[in-house]
Order: sequence, then structure tokens, then C-alpha cells
Amino acid sequence: MLHAVIMAGGSGTRFWPESRRLMPKQLLQLAGDSTMIQSTAARLGGTIPADRQWVLTNEVLVDAIGKQLPGVPGPQILGEPFKRDTAPCIGLAAVSIAHGDPDAILLVLPSDHVIADAAAFGRAIQAGEKLIQQDPTRIVTFGIKPTYPAESFGYIQRGDVIAGSDVDAFDVQRFREKPDRQTATEYLAGGDFYWNSGIFLWRADTILSAMKKNVPEMHARIETIGAAIGRDDFDAVLRKEFEAINGKSIDYAVMEGYPNVAVVEAPFDWDDVGSWQAIARLHPSDEHGNTVVGNHVAIDTTGCIIRTRPDHTVTTIDVDGLIIVQTEDATLVAPKHAEERVREIVKRLEADSRQELL
Amino acid sequence: MLHAVIMAGGSGTRFWPESRRLMPKQLLQLAGDSTMIQSTAARLGGTIPADRQWVLTNEVLVDAIGKQLPGVPGPQILGEPFKRDTAPCIGLAAVSIAHGDPDAILLVLPSDHVIADAAAFGRAIQAGEKLIQQDPTRIVTFGIKPTYPAESFGYIQRGDVIAGSDVDAFDVQRFREKPDRQTATEYLAGGDFYWNSGIFLWRADTILSAMKKNVPEMHARIETIGAAIGRDDFDAVLRKEFEAINGKSIDYAVMEGYPNVAVVEAPFDWDDVGSWQAIARLHPSDEHGNTVVGNHVAIDTTGCIIRTRPDHTVTTIDVDGLIIVQTEDATLVAPKHAEERVREIVKRLEADSRQELL
Repeated sequence: MLHAVIMAGGSGTRFWPESRRLMPKQLLQLAGDSTMIQSTAARLGGTIPADRQWVLTNEVLVDAIGKQLPGVPGPQILGEPFKRDTAPCIGLAAVSIAHGDPDAILLVLPSDHVIADAAAFGRAIQAGEKLIQQDPTRIVTFGIKPTYPAESFGYIQRGDVIAGSDVDAFDVQRFREKPDRQTATEYLAGGDFYWNSGIFLWRADTILSAMKKNVPEMHARIETIGAAIGRDDFDAVLRKEFEAINGKSIDYAVMEGYPNVAVVEAPFDWDDVGSWQAIARLHPSDEHGNTVVGNHVAIDTTGCIIRTRPDHTVTTIDVDGLIIVQTEDATLVAPKHAEERVREIVKRLEADSRQELL
Repeated sequence: MLHAVIMAGGSGTRFWPESRRLMPKQLLQLAGDSTMIQSTAARLGGTIPADRQWVLTNEVLVDAIGKQLPGVPGPQILGEPFKRDTAPCIGLAAVSIAHGDPDAILLVLPSDHVIADAAAFGRAIQAGEKLIQQDPTRIVTFGIKPTYPAESFGYIQRGDVIAGSDVDAFDVQRFREKPDRQTATEYLAGGDFYWNSGIFLWRADTILSAMKKNVPEMHARIETIGAAIGRDDFDAVLRKEFEAINGKSIDYAVMEGYPNVAVVEAPFDWDDVGSWQAIARLHPSDEHGNTVVGNHVAIDTTGCIIRTRPDHTVTTIDVDGLIIVQTEDATLVAPKHAEERVREIVKRLEADSRQELL
């Protein structure tokens, strides 16, 4: 059976002050009336119903996510007791799901992306599932056709076309880390590079075998956790083994060395909603290029991104290209080009122990 | 006896969003722990005690001012039922005070200026009082030595020195309206010009006589109001007559044509607290030239003026020269050079009937 593994452990510090430790990006309404994770679950619904959706997250977020996703069975929202990057998280999901469905195929995806066309997304998943049914050891990735020389994404270089797929699919020639501007421009011109969407499809036993080969110690601890499923000491075992794991990303632990990877060309619009400028991509702007979510009174204001609470009004005079985000206890003002530096504010608040703002 | 007439009818729209219709600038803490009007009353205290302090204001502000100035007798806080500029307001004060003290000398002063040295201020008032005792028909103004070619103040051109004054005092040669940059530069270079502080000293009967001569219809209505003092129909008479007055400023109605005006050179620092940049003059700035009243977390931020509520933090990255004022329901973001345009925001809010923000 096909299961979804929604990765919801991120902190989304670039969305501070909206995003907080206990209310990170994936739990926020950043595009539309649903939160990011609610949209993710709803988009999957037609392909993978809620009873086969699993969420992996920081243990402090389990309750909040349960409230946002009432359709997902409670035991399928798994809290990681320690932050150990994506490989242990995916391993935990794999043993948990394989425990009840040894032939499970897992769609692993972030909880905080926007994909406009759920039907196209569903077709791409089904095409990927077919590629795995053809070759159970295959790992399927989903590649986004680049539209500009992005430096903020990893890239996938495609190789030979895979015959008989319902959508465009290729063998993966190589994964590439986030490039510099020059390299990104070459990738864009080359035409055989995709942005790595961070969405993967594999059989649970395939990813566990790959982990056993590449990161055996991590795999052993994951198997120890898997063996404790249903036992009274499960929480204690999870805590002990997870803490001892040497965290690694799934890309580094498995993907980059795996010999049998396919890339499906995504037939859908995709946005990784990485920072505040995504708000401008995801909402209409006024005739002066301002994107407003909330209340704004403007005099000579152009190209700004304004977000306020419903009971607050931001007013601006003679400014251009600012991001202004107003929340109950904190307001951010920064030019768009400094949006990545929002993380520096969060680091400063951490250094100053401003827990109330984190 | 010497009485103070504190003019507190202004709206202070340049201090929006802090300043509101029911909580204008003079009722705000803009410099220090007291409100502007509390500081004004306290500064006067050593020279003119609270029981001889009178406040003229918009009738909707009478209660709020009474709470802020518990030492001032309630009947001495006079509410104007209509906005009719400064001349009727000063006339109303004059008839009200002269009713109980026909020889009253009135110090008329704004409620929203900052004067650092109360003792020097007191000495200047006493010197002015002496000039009036020498010549009861004299009107005394207080001139501030200009430190830059300000375009936002009226000017007083001095003439001959007045002998025998305790402080530098001169006959006034001429009042000048707000000049353009070029003219202001000439005034500054000329050396015989003062900024008009808007502080005046005169006998109540002197100003009433001058009004009778220059604006007889206004004077007649003011006398009608004065004749009703103590009668049951006072409020009705005040309302009827005040509404019928053709409003004029005291400068236009009396001062500019009056033949016997002296100017005392103010031996005190003075700030008219006209707009948000005054906050930078009145508070210390950090090593990056930022003036912060409230909570601010800054990354690469220079030359900003930040004001927040105690329970809110404004954060900025890579910005220079911005005014950011955060209040419960509205936030202003504008470059310093646009501070005069804050009024445009208020006008826009009025046009849009955003009563809740006015």
C-alpha cells in the first residue's frame, strides 16, 4: 500500500516573527485559509487517504499537529525526541509503517510546500508508484523544472529517459548541492537539471536496506526502536536509541550514493515557501507591487510585503521593497534582499535568551 | 497675580499613530516619564502654582486632562466647544481669569513643548513680568536663538534693546511667518532673529483691549461669554457664542499689528516636539545612531527612531533612517525625511472613516 510520510519537524526560522518554536511555519496559514500542513494533507487526500498519512515531527509539536489534522490517526503522528536530521526520521517512519504493512511504499514529502494542482501531483505519485512496481529497489525523486538560476535549492541532473512511464521520467545521473550563481546559471542553460523538490518515493524495505548498507549503526538503532513497537517500553527505547544516533540527512546518508534513482519531472507548479518573499509569489499584489495579507494604509509605497494580524494596521510612507510582518508581540522590518538574514534575528534572540519571542 | 494659560487643544497628527483624537500629543509621554502637559505644569510650578494654572482645550479632552493634572482646580480646565483657533481660546481664558482677578497677568504657553531648565524658564517669566509692570500695555514674547535655518517656525525680528531688564530683552521690530530655506538662512546669518516660541505674557485687560480694537465682533462674543460666568446658562452661552466666532490665530488677530511688543531672549533650551524626529533629540541614541523608546532588536540598523509598547519588540535588519512607531492597533514605518507626511496618513484614515484609528 501507498503511505504518505509528512516531514513536519522544521522550525522555519526565516518566517519569524510569525514562525515560533511551538508554532513553526508548517502550522501557519501562509498561503490561503489552511495551514501549510493542512494543505499538504488535503492535497494528498485524493491519492493517499488520511488513514495512511503519517506525520514525523518534533515531539513538542505532536499535539498541535493532531489538532490541525483530526483525520490522521493519533498514533500516526510520531514525535522525534531529539533533532537528528532527516535520515533517522525517515528510518523511524519506515520501521513504524513496515510493522503493519511490510510491502509499504512511502511517499516522503515536506509539510510546508505549496503545490497548486493536486490532481497533477496525484498523477505524478501514481507514475512514481508504477516505476517502483517495475523495479522494487528503485528510489523515485520528483524534479522541478528550474525557471531561474536558484542558489537556494539542491539540483538533480537527469540521465537516460525511462521508457513506459506515464509521465516524463529519467534515471538520475547525479545529485548536486546548492550551487553558486554561476553554476546555477549553467544548470539552467544545460536543460538537464531539476530542482530537488525534497519529495521521495520508495518501498519501506528498500530505504531500510539502503540505510543498513550505508549507515549500519543508525540502522541498527532504528531496528531496535522498530522491535519495541507495541511494547510498554517503546517510549524509553525510542528516547534512548534516538538520542544515541549520529544524525545525518537522508541525502547524505543514502541518496547521493544510491545506484538506482529515478526522477519524475513534476507536472505541477511548486513553491518551497522558503522565506517571506514566497508570500509575494503566493498572493496577488496591488498596482504598486505591494502584497498585503492583513491591513495596510499606504502613501507612496511600492514593492512591499506586508503581513498583519486582523486587528492591526501597518501604515507606510515613501518606502520600497520592505518586508513588514506584524505579530502580537514582535514586528519585523527588513528589505526583501535581507530576508535570509531573518535567521540572524532568531539567533540573536536565542543568544539573549528571549524565550518569549522564540 | 501671575496666571498660566496652558494651551492644550492641539491634535498632534504628526505623532500618529501614538497621537489620537482622544489622546493627542500633549497627553502622551514623549519625553521622559511624564506626559507633555504634566511636564509643562510641573515646570511652571515653581513660578506659577497649580491653583493659578488654567488649561484651555477641546471639550472632549477636559476629563483626561483633569486626570493628568489633579492639582489644577477642575473649573480652571476650560473646554472649547468648537475649534476656533487661538484668538478666541485666549480671549476665553482672559475673561475667565479677569473675572476673579482683574489685574491678572497671563503667561500663555503651549502644552507640548520641552524646556529643560525650569529655573531659567522661571527667571525669564519673572523678567517678562517686570517688563509688564514697567509698561502695562506691553506684550512680552519669548524668542529662541536659532541654531539652524528652520523652516517650520515663525520668527521674531528684534529691534532696540530694552534697558533695565534682568535678561536680554528687546523691542520687537517685526513678526515673520515661516520662511523658505533661503530666507531662513538669511535670518540665521542676520543674528537679530529669534524663533517664535509661542509663549506670551500680557495683562488680561491688555489682550482684551487689543482684541476689542482689532477683532471687535470676536471680542463682543467673548465678553458675552464672560458676562455669563457663574450663571446657570453659561454652558449654553459659551456654546452659542463660540460657535458663531470667526476663528483666527492670536498672531493674525492681534500680535502682528500690536505696537508695543517686547521679546525676551530665552535663556533655556527649548524643543517644540513637533514631529517624530524630536524623539531623537530628546532621548540618547545608541552607537549606531538609533533612538529607541521601547524594545528593539537590530541587525545592521542605523539612524532609526523606534518606539514600541512595553510588551512588543520591533526587529530590523539592514535599514537606515526609518521611523518605526508601534502601537496596539497601528504601526507606522516611514523614512525620517517623510515625517511631515504622517499627516497624510491621518487624512487618508479620515477620508476612509477609519474612526477606530483616529
